[in-house]
Amino acid sequence: MGEINYKVVLCYDGTDFSGWQRQPGKRTVQGIVEEALARLAGKRTTLVGAGRTDAGVHASGQVANFKANLRLKEDELMRALNALLPEDVRVLSIQRVPPEFNARKMAKAKVYQYRIWNSSRISPFVLRYVLHWPGYLNVDKMAQAARLFVRKDDFTAFSSNRLLHPVREVYNSEIKKRGAQIFYTVEANGFLRYMARTMVGTLLEVGREKVELGQIEEAFRQKKRFLAGPTAPARGLCLVKVKY
Amino acid sequence: MGEINYKVVLCYDGTDFSGWQRQPGKRTVQGIVEEALARLAGKRTTLVGAGRTDAGVHASGQVANFKANLRLKEDELMRALNALLPEDVRVLSIQRVPPEFNARKMAKAKVYQYRIWNSSRISPFVLRYVLHWPGYLNVDKMAQAARLFVRKDDFTAFSSNRLLHPVREVYNSEIKKRGAQIFYTVEANGFLRYMARTMVGTLLEVGREKVELGQIEEAFRQKKRFLAGPTAPARGLCLVKVKY
Repeated sequence: MGEINYKVVLCYDGTDFSGWQRQPGKRTVQGIVEEALARLAGKRTTLVGAGRTDAGVHASGQVANFKANLRLKEDELMRALNALLPEDVRVLSIQRVPPEFNARKMAKAKVYQYRIWNSSRISPFVLRYVLHWPGYLNVDKMAQAARLFVRKDDFTAFSSNRLLHPVREVYNSEIKKRGAQIFYTVEANGFLRYMARTMVGTLLEVGREKVELGQIEEAFRQKKRFLAGPTAPARGLCLVKVKY
Repeated sequence: MGEINYKVVLCYDGTDFSGWQRQPGKRTVQGIVEEALARLAGKRTTLVGAGRTDAGVHASGQVANFKANLRLKEDELMRALNALLPEDVRVLSIQRVPPEFNARKMAKAKVYQYRIWNSSRISPFVLRYVLHWPGYLNVDKMAQAARLFVRKDDFTAFSSNRLLHPVREVYNSEIKKRGAQIFYTVEANGFLRYMARTMVGTLLEVGREKVELGQIEEAFRQKKRFLAGPTAPARGLCLVKVKY
């Protein structure tokens, strides 16, 4: 019997990880899950993740795939993996998929959510998962600005590095306020490095009324990083869904 | 102008604290808040807490008091304290109280809540705040057992040490299920050491159908620790309210 291709949905608290991608001597999500897989499979197993989340970024719906020759049923495999994994990363589901399935290459869209806690009072129970912003924010302006990101365009101004193919399509980009919290949801066919966090940083500048909506258009036109806002902290960001 | 007595309500994530009580060389809530107070007041200041929570136990409504001679208004004092404190402990409110107010001695009742996550799937985002219990639990039996704790009685069997005055009155003790979570709420005029967690440990034994309700009555009669269940882990417990 040959190897079977498995698709897994993963959830993790990114606080104590140096991001997704395996790096020697660092505690990374890919590294930790691959270690658990190697113990189950008895040999080195590569885990292909849909999105390479940065250090401190969380996921409630990261998708990955790996190939292995195991005698376990899916639910047994899930239990075995969760028993081997540390508590801050959990396997939410496992299913067999055709051999050609590749979690990264076949992802059609990714959805990220960013949480801003806009109140002077913050609970210590949420602080690993939100950006605490006690100051005034014009949420209506932020919502308007968010809609400007819905486009197929060159997002170089909103990324930390220049790529040969910097065009991405944002399908949805919206701000919602619920109580003291501001939720920003963004869906795109792909994200450049730091793109989601730079979009949030720009929305915060708009909320502070330091940046006008016109400057976002200008950033797209000139493709200059300095026209966008700062990169927002990782802790507020969560990869919530990958679509295929 | 003499010293003013302040009542503070505190919220903390107990995970990274060695409990409430100041101990040399340990990171404790009392120690950390007293350090911040000393910086503001320019001298050593004692913080009197209503309940001495154990290592790993959380609080969303711990109450404490301290006396100081400060030039700050209450809201300024709260902001200053929160700026000096680490993120995992927050001051929720501050008010001036009469000089005779003592957070510990004058507490009439304390309310604790314990959260049990009764599902094989658990989110890494809650695991610092719940006991993860994937196995079967008979919640109806647990609810019945919980009601047996509502009494004025000697709680020695549910504590780690023998006291001269081991009688406490439990006003409320109830189990509620919401989705995958079981919430246990207990209110008493006071708690012996590990009392809330031993009550939870006993309820879990009942939920596993290892212990009958009669054994709880027997534990009260014989006052023997071995008749009660094990001490449940700290992480699920939270001091939610102190009543005066």
